[in-house]
Amino acid sequence: MLRNIGIVMKDVRLKGFEKLTNVDEAREIVLNKVKELDSEKAKIEEAVGRVLYRDIVATRDMPPFDRAAMDGYAVRAEDTFGASQTNPIYLRVIGEASIGNVSEISVGEKEAVKIMTGTPMPRGANAVVMFEHVNELGDEIEVLKPVTPGKNVSLRGEDFKKGDTILKKGRVLKPQDIAVLASLGYREVEVYRRPKVGVISTGDELINPGESLKEGKIYDVNGYSLVVLSKMNGALAERIGIVRDNYDDIKNTIKNAVKRYDVVIVSGATSVGKRDYIPLIAKELGEILFHGVAMRPGEPTGCAVIDGKILFMLPGYPVASIVAFENFVKPTIQKMQGYICDDYPRVKLKLKRKIAGSLGRRDFVRVRITKDGMVEPIRVSGSGIITSLVKADGIVIVPENREGFEEGDEVEVRLFERCFDKIIKS
Amino acid sequence: MLRNIGIVMKDVRLKGFEKLTNVDEAREIVLNKVKELDSEKAKIEEAVGRVLYRDIVATRDMPPFDRAAMDGYAVRAEDTFGASQTNPIYLRVIGEASIGNVSEISVGEKEAVKIMTGTPMPRGANAVVMFEHVNELGDEIEVLKPVTPGKNVSLRGEDFKKGDTILKKGRVLKPQDIAVLASLGYREVEVYRRPKVGVISTGDELINPGESLKEGKIYDVNGYSLVVLSKMNGALAERIGIVRDNYDDIKNTIKNAVKRYDVVIVSGATSVGKRDYIPLIAKELGEILFHGVAMRPGEPTGCAVIDGKILFMLPGYPVASIVAFENFVKPTIQKMQGYICDDYPRVKLKLKRKIAGSLGRRDFVRVRITKDGMVEPIRVSGSGIITSLVKADGIVIVPENREGFEEGDEVEVRLFERCFDKIIKS
Repeated sequence: MLRNIGIVMKDVRLKGFEKLTNVDEAREIVLNKVKELDSEKAKIEEAVGRVLYRDIVATRDMPPFDRAAMDGYAVRAEDTFGASQTNPIYLRVIGEASIGNVSEISVGEKEAVKIMTGTPMPRGANAVVMFEHVNELGDEIEVLKPVTPGKNVSLRGEDFKKGDTILKKGRVLKPQDIAVLASLGYREVEVYRRPKVGVISTGDELINPGESLKEGKIYDVNGYSLVVLSKMNGALAERIGIVRDNYDDIKNTIKNAVKRYDVVIVSGATSVGKRDYIPLIAKELGEILFHGVAMRPGEPTGCAVIDGKILFMLPGYPVASIVAFENFVKPTIQKMQGYICDDYPRVKLKLKRKIAGSLGRRDFVRVRITKDGMVEPIRVSGSGIITSLVKADGIVIVPENREGFEEGDEVEVRLFERCFDKIIKS
Repeated sequence: MLRNIGIVMKDVRLKGFEKLTNVDEAREIVLNKVKELDSEKAKIEEAVGRVLYRDIVATRDMPPFDRAAMDGYAVRAEDTFGASQTNPIYLRVIGEASIGNVSEISVGEKEAVKIMTGTPMPRGANAVVMFEHVNELGDEIEVLKPVTPGKNVSLRGEDFKKGDTILKKGRVLKPQDIAVLASLGYREVEVYRRPKVGVISTGDELINPGESLKEGKIYDVNGYSLVVLSKMNGALAERIGIVRDNYDDIKNTIKNAVKRYDVVIVSGATSVGKRDYIPLIAKELGEILFHGVAMRPGEPTGCAVIDGKILFMLPGYPVASIVAFENFVKPTIQKMQGYICDDYPRVKLKLKRKIAGSLGRRDFVRVRITKDGMVEPIRVSGSGIITSLVKADGIVIVPENREGFEEGDEVEVRLFERCFDKIIKS
């Protein structure tokens, strides 16, 4: 039986997109619809990569007291003026400062108190002479080098003062920020809630990894890569699973998904082919923001709003899917968490071979960095070639106003690799 | 009561380190003692950032069949030669290819079969004419542009062939690698086990964040930052807690910790002061690899092996602690997982103000990138100033063979910030 034979109709939808939206414009359109989420508490040791919901304001001075910044002797700086190797100055050691006793010690004229780094400075002292610059002679020291007032002392409030804004709302927390939060006494911190993302894979040809492969079938790839990419951008993401190319099944799955997730991603069936149901369903259920973007790969990308939730329609081809994610889903997930950030490290290198683009379209070209520190495009037949992304060191963007780059042109490579010692030879 | 008064003895240990080990040498010494861990299985959607324990070899061709790379008509390329807008060539449409029927369709001379991207190519056809280049006329099409054999077709095995090594052992998995693993049918993947790291904070002055602050006390910072940094490098890390400056308590805590963790980090009391017990304990329990490193901050850093486990002794000052972690603990944790990688993105910029260093010592200088795209050091009294790391955009390293850099020198900044659009104005 030859299915479909004879049912070939003239169908304008097969002719391609009537209008392609510019990448920046499409991004702008969806981001205008995106609202920041509310907040939740996170333990500080689990808050790296989370985004601050409120400014962190110091509730006290840091250090909370003047303290020694070096191991040595707390002294009155004036008593050491003129000291040298050949003409040492002698001070009487009256004790050792510790947290327990410091309020009771006072350093008078020609006196010194032994002190370790971090210990509060005793009254009367205004500087620390390092051990390296003294000789210890029982209850006396020889000072071999003068110190100026304030030398080797961390003054109260030097790090920050009560009322200072230490970390700003919208900051993506780094390890050093966690250190600061700990130093302020925070056990938990208020951060943006993580967006919930659900990923639906569509296609009669798809089966789940782990299942045995049958003729004409392929494993679902995007269900996994899109979940992983969403997680890397802070989302709580999960794979909803594979749905067959059936209008009602897909529609019901989307209807249920928008109830449970902040963002729903549908992979596949997003173009203008006969079985590309998703845009039709999106139109039926909500409002299409754009469909068809002037980019390659990733042209059959669309976005809709259904019941106040964002629905992304991403192309089925894995590379196109990832490129579309990076351009539209990533900033959406980020904006929900109060920031937008382009986190590809970049290098500028010369092209070994020309790169073709097309006027009016943005091209994302997978490139490799050669041993001699140049850049060349990876030759593939299309965005179905997944390993092209594995072989690539990064992406070169050919903007809309260029037809490409010539051999020898300097281009900016957006790197995939975070191991810089491996990749940057230049 | 003035505690300790009168107990000031001449103590050579207080005079500083007898010998400082060079940074690279110290790193070499510890890495020579580090063994790679064994493996475990991880679900592919949880495997980003994990490290491959074995090569991934393709067990089949990808694509598994020749398939259309575009939507259009599958044809014999030879039939289209000479076609143009003014002289179209006419082909008879004999059906539409789908996964279900493709084995039964065959394209003969002057015939065409409608086909969608990803569908297996029918027998006889060797190219796809895109919809854009045909006019559909019921059971015929007008071809307006010729195609060459292989055009718009992804050949079987083009992505990879059975037996190809797709991903190499030691690779830190990226999202696109997860995509490849899914396409190969993997549900799980064999990765290096995550090292277990325990962090001990020592010091009479320390209290836990969340507790109310008393005179002369400060919150434990390093217990948190070191856990967070360890996690970011793939470890399963936890805070063991605060131990008072008591020789036996610290010793017992370390003895227990080396039984439970692959790596134990002790923070504080690692210098050569009177209460710096850690090096003495390490010597008693095991073998000291080095103690005292020619770097600033971070000089009082040490490393020992106890019962085959690695013990790091890190300085108590938060910034010194982080710098020491990056130089010694990070590569250790990484090597246990089968790789070593320097993942700071870098930019080269000109210095606005000079940076001082010291011959024979490696200096890690916190710097800020100014609005005019230059670099300036952040002025602080020492490595106790935590916010200096928050205010800094990155680090400039002054190597051992330089006394510093002059204003106007071009220096390499190792960036903390991953949001490149925020930081790179140059």
